[in-house]
Order: sequence, then C-alpha cells, then structure tokens
Amino acid sequence: MTDKDTVTKVTAAQDAALELAQTTNETRSDGLRAIAEAILDRKDEILEANEKDVAEAKEMLEAGEYSQALVDRLKLDETKLQSIAEMVRSVADQEDPLGKTLTARELDDGLELYNVAVPIGVIGTVFESRPDALVQIAALSLKSGNAVILKGGSEALHSNRVLYSIIEDVTDDIASGWVQLIEAHEAVDTVLEMDDSIDLLMPRGSTEFVRYIQENTKIPVLGHTEGVCHVFVDSDADLKMATEVSFDAKVQYPAVCNAVETLLVHEAVAEEFLPEMVDRYEGAGVEIRGDERTREIVDVSQAEAGDWETEYGDLVISIKVIDSLSEAIDHVNTYGSKHTESIITEDEDRAGQFMRSVDASSVFHNASTRFADGFRYGLGAEVGISTGKIHARGPVGLEGLTTTKYYLEGDGQLVATYAGEDPKPFAHEEFDGDWTPGKRSSK
Amino acid sequence: MTDKDTVTKVTAAQDAALELAQTTNETRSDGLRAIAEAILDRKDEILEANEKDVAEAKEMLEAGEYSQALVDRLKLDETKLQSIAEMVRSVADQEDPLGKTLTARELDDGLELYNVAVPIGVIGTVFESRPDALVQIAALSLKSGNAVILKGGSEALHSNRVLYSIIEDVTDDIASGWVQLIEAHEAVDTVLEMDDSIDLLMPRGSTEFVRYIQENTKIPVLGHTEGVCHVFVDSDADLKMATEVSFDAKVQYPAVCNAVETLLVHEAVAEEFLPEMVDRYEGAGVEIRGDERTREIVDVSQAEAGDWETEYGDLVISIKVIDSLSEAIDHVNTYGSKHTESIITEDEDRAGQFMRSVDASSVFHNASTRFADGFRYGLGAEVGISTGKIHARGPVGLEGLTTTKYYLEGDGQLVATYAGEDPKPFAHEEFDGDWTPGKRSSK
Repeated sequence: MTDKDTVTKVTAAQDAALELAQTTNETRSDGLRAIAEAILDRKDEILEANEKDVAEAKEMLEAGEYSQALVDRLKLDETKLQSIAEMVRSVADQEDPLGKTLTARELDDGLELYNVAVPIGVIGTVFESRPDALVQIAALSLKSGNAVILKGGSEALHSNRVLYSIIEDVTDDIASGWVQLIEAHEAVDTVLEMDDSIDLLMPRGSTEFVRYIQENTKIPVLGHTEGVCHVFVDSDADLKMATEVSFDAKVQYPAVCNAVETLLVHEAVAEEFLPEMVDRYEGAGVEIRGDERTREIVDVSQAEAGDWETEYGDLVISIKVIDSLSEAIDHVNTYGSKHTESIITEDEDRAGQFMRSVDASSVFHNASTRFADGFRYGLGAEVGISTGKIHARGPVGLEGLTTTKYYLEGDGQLVATYAGEDPKPFAHEEFDGDWTPGKRSSK
Repeated sequence: MTDKDTVTKVTAAQDAALELAQTTNETRSDGLRAIAEAILDRKDEILEANEKDVAEAKEMLEAGEYSQALVDRLKLDETKLQSIAEMVRSVADQEDPLGKTLTARELDDGLELYNVAVPIGVIGTVFESRPDALVQIAALSLKSGNAVILKGGSEALHSNRVLYSIIEDVTDDIASGWVQLIEAHEAVDTVLEMDDSIDLLMPRGSTEFVRYIQENTKIPVLGHTEGVCHVFVDSDADLKMATEVSFDAKVQYPAVCNAVETLLVHEAVAEEFLPEMVDRYEGAGVEIRGDERTREIVDVSQAEAGDWETEYGDLVISIKVIDSLSEAIDHVNTYGSKHTESIITEDEDRAGQFMRSVDASSVFHNASTRFADGFRYGLGAEVGISTGKIHARGPVGLEGLTTTKYYLEGDGQLVATYAGEDPKPFAHEEFDGDWTPGKRSSK
C-alpha cells in the first residue's frame, strides 16, 4: 500500500531536484553556512528536543530494549552541536562537485561533445539514530545539488524533527521542497516503490536492513553490507610490524566495518609470531578463536566453520595458519566481504600478487585495515562506504553523489551525413575546454 | 528453482574472473585477434549453423510468428563475418581499459593511496537475436577483463552455439571458464538469483524485458528502457535547420531509441514552420499526430494523451505547439524518458537554459538526436546505452565495464597514530604516479 503523504513529499522533491540542479555552488554553499549558523542559534530548541529522545531512550534502556551505547550516540550537547556546525561549514568549503567538464571532444568541425558532472536527482536515505547523521546527509546532498528524502531512526524522532525544520527554514528559498523528512516504516515501503521518482537509495544500518532494501526495490542501492576483513601475516613479514598492525586493526575500534575479523598467518612464521600476538590481544581483552594448527602453538579456543564468515564487530578475532600465499588469497576470496584486506610482508612481489588477486574495494600493504575511510583517504566528508562494485566502490565522497550528462553543441548537423554509402568520417578529437551553455568553443 | 547446470557455469565464471583480472592487455588482445582469425577460418561451420536458424525462422515467419526484419537480422554471410572479425580486431586495438591509476594521494609520509581501474568481475548479459551480438559482447568483456554469462535469443541458437564454441576454443587457456553460454529461460531465472556471484547484469531487448529483469533480481542492472526523445523548435530557431534536423531525427532510422518521437514547436514559429515540415515528413511516409493547435495550422490526425509518452519506433511522430521555453522544458521532463533531447535555436541563452534544465543523459543544441551513440561519441565499441543515472549514463564504452580498487602502500602505519587525543594530521597530497604493485613511489 502506498502512503499518499509520502508520495506527495517525494514528488515535491522530484520537482525541487530540477530546480536545485540549476543553482550555483555559491548559493548551495551559502545555504550550508546558513544551516550551520541556525543550528547554533537555535541550540536550546535542539537540546530540548534531544532531551526528550534521550529520556525515552533511557526508559528503553531500563526495559532492556536499548543499549547504553545507543543512548550515548543519541545524546547531543553544546560541544557536539559546535562540531556539527563545523562539519556543515567544511562541506560548504569543499570544491564544487558539479559542472566540471570531464571530457570535451570534437566529433567534427563545429560539433562538440561535452561530458559534464551533474547531480543524480533525488536520493532516498535511511540512516541510524545519531542525530548528526541527518545533518551530515542533508549537507552532502545540498552541496551536490541533490534533493533528499531523509528517514532517521525513530529513537531520534524529536531531535530529527527540529534539525529538519531548521534546515528547511533556512534553505527552502533555494529550491522549495528539496529536503523531505519521513518517519513511519510504511513511508519507507512507499519510497521503495517510487522507482520513477527516486534515482538512488543510500541505506545505512545493519546488513539485514540493507539486504531488505535491496530485495524490495528496483531503485539502485548504494550501501554496504558487512565487513569481514583480513590481515595476512606473510612468511616475509616484519613480525613486529605485523603485531602492531594486527593489534591496531582489531583493537583501535572493533565495532566498525573496517576492523579485522580474521588473522591469516603463514606457517613459516606462525611459531614465532603467534605467542606474542596472542599476548597482546589477551592484554586488551580480545577473545581469540584459532584453527587446529593455531591451537598447536597457542592456547586459544576452537574456531568453528562459521567463524570464518563472521563480522564480530567486537573484541573477538579468529586466527588460521595457512600454507602459502595462494591459500591466503583463496581464503580471503572465499570468506571475505570484498571490503578491506591487508598483507604484511617485506617482499614486494608477494605483496603485489596478493593485492592484485584479492577481490576487495581496498587492499593494503603494510598498513592497518582501519585506514579504509573517506576522511582518511582524503575524500572530504564521507557519504558512506560501498561494498558494491557499481557506480562507487569503497569510501564514497561527494563525487559519488554525482552523475554525468552529455551536452552536444552543433550547427544543424545530421546523422545522415555520417551514415550510408559515402559517410563523412568523424574527427573524434579531445580538446581542453569547459562547456559554456549554448556555445561552441570553436565559434 | 535453481538449475544446477547454470550454477556450475556461473561459479566457473566467478573463478575465472579472478584469474582474468591478472592478465595483461597483450594477452587479452591476442585472444581477441585469435577469435577474429578463428571466425574466418571456421566460416563454413558458422554459416551452416546459421542456415539452420534462418530456415527455422522462415518457418516461423510463414506461421506469422516472426517478422521479415527478424529473419534479415538473423542471417549471416561471408561479408557479415568479415565485418564481425573486423569489429573484434578493433576492440583488440583499443586502449587498455584496465590498470590506469586514476588518483594517487600521499596520506602521510610513506603512506600512499592509489585508485586503479579494474574489471567488475562477472557480467550477466541477455541480448537480442543478432548472432553478431554474442561476439561483440564477448569481445568487450574479454578486453575489459570480465568473465561473462551469455544468453542470446533462441532464434539464433545454432549460430550462437558455434560462435560460442569458437570463442571458448581459442581463449580458454587465458582463463578457463571466463565465457559461458546459457540457453534455457530457466537458466536466466537462476542467474537472477545469483547475486553473490554476478556483479552486473546488462540486458538488451524490449522495455518490458528489461523491467522484468530489474524487478526480479538484487544484482545491479545496467540497461536502457525506452527512448522518448524530443526536438524542440524554439522561437529563435533557424527554421531551415529545424526542418533538416527534425527530418533526420525521425526518418534516418526510425526503429532506434535515439530517434525523435515528439516535435515541440514554439507558437511564434509554428505557422511558418509546420507546413513545410509536414510536407517533408509526408513525403517520407511519416504518419503525423498533432495536438489541437497543430491541427489549426496543418491537416494531420489527432494526437491522443497517450501519444506524448509513446516510443513509436516507427515512421510516426507527434507534434505539439507550445507557448514558451519553460513549457517545452516541463513537457520534456514530464513525458521524456531521460534519453536524448534537442533544442533548435539561435539564442545561446535559451539553448543553455533548455540544456541545463532538461533531465536527460544527452541534451543537444542544433543537432539531430540520432547522434546519441557510443561510436559517434568516439567511445569506441558500445556496450549499450544506459538510461539509468548510476555507474554509467548515456552511451557506455569499455570504461563502463570497469570499476576501481583502492591500493594502499604503507610501512606499518596504524590508525591509532592518527586518532585519539593528539592525532597526527594527514597530508592528503595528490601526486602524479602509477601504482607499482608492492612499492611506494617515495621509496
């Protein structure tokens, strides 16, 4: 069943998208700076709404429904609002992702083709209950000229409403209706059906949730499912480095998708490497599950078959001793989730072989898997991480919110001239030049 | 119900994809040249199989099931085989779409991030009954390092079998199993379910068929649905040019998706423009359906509401007189299929406004819509035309069959160094440099 209110909102966003696509970077960036200012001006209103959410969440915590971590993530204070405003300003300061001419090609005298970066159109987003997520997604959408449908976690209902109304108040004159808030679960189902109006879905949340979205819509989905990442300690590894990297990759922040879940250890170094590694992990409270050969060297619990494909998201790691580089590659390609993989080795050829052969969005040599992140990659603000291979792969920045449009500037050229018995040949010469609407460069 | 034989084939393709991704451009291009040679060497075998298909198709033609056009498209002869071999050689000669370093960025001293073009993996294709389609798709897949599942039209069954076996014979040593042929309809349903093994679907065929695929799979689909393209004859048009372009856009090849379906004529020029235009069209046997205002000027049949959203794919055109540039933009954004749109005007500002405001993959100024094509755009061989906005938009060349992979070369860097209380800042400096597996440029 479609819900009329949601259809109205999505249709309004679709109209606004066409308008927003015509705005300048200055207009969009000024809008972002106005959002940052309004968030600080109206902080009391935001904090008051947020207190309601936190109070309700605490009740759920007492009832055993929510975790303390969720309550913590939900809570806003003045410092957090400052950093949210800062984030919005930093998005405003980024380079314009739109209007860039990617290629200019002369097809023939006076017939010029330009491929130009443009907004995607209408983006549907569903995100977790941190209230800063709403602001971040709205900011990235505005900067990239896209209309956006926002659906946040119900835990952040009151905070999201106030934040949304602030954003709408100060940017509605740019392209009325460009940002829309939906709240009910049924609204999400309506959104999934509106493939004629929505160009891209970007769900964030659990793997099950992202899969549900993928299974129930024709709209392209840019999302990430899970992160089953490996560190492979090769026969030629610097073992001190291997210990440090493996420790960082698991312990520095175990809850995230780029944390390591399985350590693969080459048999040539297993006896020397494992005891110290296990000591380090156990000192940090990491639960270790080893295969038979690991358990011959160190006293850890038994890994079950299911461990190799599990994203623990916690201080748990599985360890497997393997015979060769190619066994490591096979294991990663069988059990990995194509997210981020790392090899520790001093041998450049073996590093190259692993990196080329492993099918993942990011493959590292002598570095922690935790580096896989838009900010660390230097992409500016991160839209999300894509584990799909289409459109955008790995950490996605503003560029992932753009598509391209071909503009052809002619002087009455006909295809008949270039077809048939005695066709005129094309020139197909690329040149440096930006598209100036309505004009040919050669003119 | 999944069909075991298809599962085996797709799994073999998945294994082969990893192997094929490691091959050099030389190996892949030599494979293509071997295919071209084998097609000519084994031409008798191909023509014999093709005769069977043509004979069966003729029976269906007599039974009224097939059209003469279908029988014609199906038929191969020596000249056609020559041109197929030529096409395969031209794909071989194209620049390597793989291995290009798109960005190189120093994250910090000795920590270097490279974004490199790589194959997508396994591509599932379903295509029309021209037997050259099989060879073209296989050639583009091999050049771009992708394993491919081929499903051709049943009308070309015998031709496809022979062509497939030739391709397999001469390239199987490159990466055994990289090319797979499936034939039954049930096999397609199995393919649609294998989202863990297939990375991209590229269906060609009717709009209904592409929609069926989109509705029944979680695999990303790159396809094009329909082409409802417009030519807008503006108040400031050169009317002679407008007549020539509108004629070319409809008559030069009416069966294709980039042919025009609706002519929008500004009221300021309608009385002068329409009589001659209608003469030209009628001289070429074009059926004309006009709105009320058109019919006040010329004697043509009445356009119904449904005409504005119809892809005739034939010598039929609808004509509407409109009041203003913005009405033209609205009409196109309401009824167009986001494929290709053209404005004829001498006013550069009006051209720019139309081009920026119209939501389509290609927007032209003073040129025929029929130019929207990978070959004419200078993309080399064309994989297809995408009317979606994600991954690839408009005519898609070999680049559309690639994705990217991030390679990070480090020296034991930990994220802990760049996080926490006193984080080390990132450098984030782009530099010119190609990824050399296992090495840092600065080393």
